[in-house]
Amino acid sequence: MALTVADAQAILSANFAPWVLDLNLKVEMAGEGTARIRLPFDKKLVRVGGTICGQALMTVADTVMVLAVAGASGGFRPMTTVGQTISFMKPVSSVDALVEARVLRLGKTLAFGEIAIRADGRDELVAHATTTYAILGPPPGS
Amino acid sequence: MALTVADAQAILSANFAPWVLDLNLKVEMAGEGTARIRLPFDKKLVRVGGTICGQALMTVADTVMVLAVAGASGGFRPMTTVGQTISFMKPVSSVDALVEARVLRLGKTLAFGEIAIRADGRDELVAHATTTYAILGPPPGS
Amino acid sequence: MALTVADAQAILSANFAPWVLDLNLKVEMAGEGTARIRLPFDKKLVRVGGTICGQALMTVADTVMVLAVAGASGGFRPMTTVGQTISFMKPVSSVDALVEARVLRLGKTLAFGEIAIRADGRDELVAHATTTYAILGPPPGS
Amino acid sequence: MALTVADAQAILSANFAPWVLDLNLKVEMAGEGTARIRLPFDKKLVRVGGTICGQALMTVADTVMVLAVAGASGGFRPMTTVGQTISFMKPVSSVDALVEARVLRLGKTLAFGEIAIRADGRDELVAHATTTYAILGPPPGS
Repeated sequence: MALTVADAQAILSANFAPWVLDLNLKVEMAGEGTARIRLPFDKKLVRVGGTICGQALMTVADTVMVLAVAGASGGFRPMTTVGQTISFMKPVSSVDALVEARVLRLGKTLAFGEIAIRADGRDELVAHATTTYAILGPPPGS
Repeated sequence: MALTVADAQAILSANFAPWVLDLNLKVEMAGEGTARIRLPFDKKLVRVGGTICGQALMTVADTVMVLAVAGASGGFRPMTTVGQTISFMKPVSSVDALVEARVLRLGKTLAFGEIAIRADGRDELVAHATTTYAILGPPPGS
Repeated sequence: MALTVADAQAILSANFAPWVLDLNLKVEMAGEGTARIRLPFDKKLVRVGGTICGQALMTVADTVMVLAVAGASGGFRPMTTVGQTISFMKPVSSVDALVEARVLRLGKTLAFGEIAIRADGRDELVAHATTTYAILGPPPGS
Repeated sequence: MALTVADAQAILSANFAPWVLDLNLKVEMAGEGTARIRLPFDKKLVRVGGTICGQALMTVADTVMVLAVAGASGGFRPMTTVGQTISFMKPVSSVDALVEARVLRLGKTLAFGEIAIRADGRDELVAHATTTYAILGPPPGS
């Protein structure tokens, strides 16, 4: 059964650290192996130079993939990040960031995905990440 | 001239986003091309399962390398992350994390480094990262 | 002006090491910021277990991106790899591999791309890479 | 029991693809969780510009870690690369490359390592890689 945006928002609230939830993340899309989070612009995310800190973008990239895997599995699955690689291509200033994950492969023990990050209203990528997760438990109801 | 721990702590306070500074980071060591930050354990960093969230570790990894490059340059240099790769090897529970950066190469336009992350009081690695930065400006006083 | 497949094959022959050309690579597609190479199955690429060695796949991934950047630039540009990250998702046995690159961002000094690797005749990914290159010279004729 | 250099050279010959063995790799050191391979300079490895192609360096990086894990396990273990990240810092011209691996963590199902690459006779790094492997079988004799 497909995950709804409300389901994904609930998974987010229930499973992530308060310091991550301080980012005030909004799930905007949840599908079968995909999910998108809006990171609202906030002055507390701005580093010297006026741009959103890369640390917030890598944090959201790691977060959104958990929702994309849940979307591919019919619900939240216990999982842990094995590795993440992120490339920063352009700075993001004064607007929200949209962070969209896509599962590349969901195996029995490992899941792979990629994350595209854009500034709100712009087509071009500002950052791109790939991640590998270890799957620690079965899908719900299995 | 070597960077002191107080210098590095001042660079940290002056150049990072408030959301990063919320981590209450303590510079413990600053040297020529190296630096170490203590991430104090805090319940707000804990995700489901009781371990420190990987997002905090990747955030500190990105942060500490700026101090290591400053230490190799005689002071803070404007720089931006081009890419980071992090591997998570073991969970960290209920203790501080120690995040130590080492510059692998400091070129004219690019800097490369690695970051070792350990749980306080333990020798083994819990995570390991490598990073590439674009250097945007000269060292101070040059 | 768009790069043809023959142009891309000529760039390949002129600019890569003989040990790479020993792979007998066939350019199959060349476009604006994209390119695809066929790695013909060959027993000399097979490691213990009967699968194509990952080393050949990472080699072709690094190679094909040079063609994709040429395609985005109207011709070959001197460039050097700053970094590559590759994930291996499934083994490839007894068939050709198709290695397709896409430029994610082509800046003045850095280019970023991703590479999808599939087994011939199958839709699913067997490997996925991301790369960063330093651009060392202008496009031809500029 | 410790792995000897001859043991490691035998593992290399028995388990890698002929195209990799064409590099004429020499094991120079094998220890508990570490190994070093010499990549002899050869004109067939040289790309336009006169430097050793990065593809050969990433190939050897992937290869040497298998020996380092064997060294940590008392013998060869079936394993497969999950991911590799490599950074290129300086070109290597006209000399052998020395590629040294170190296991960062050897778990039950995953192994992590880093690889330092130097030009023969020089201390500085020319490239640096990190890798993750899935362990597919037990150590010998267990």
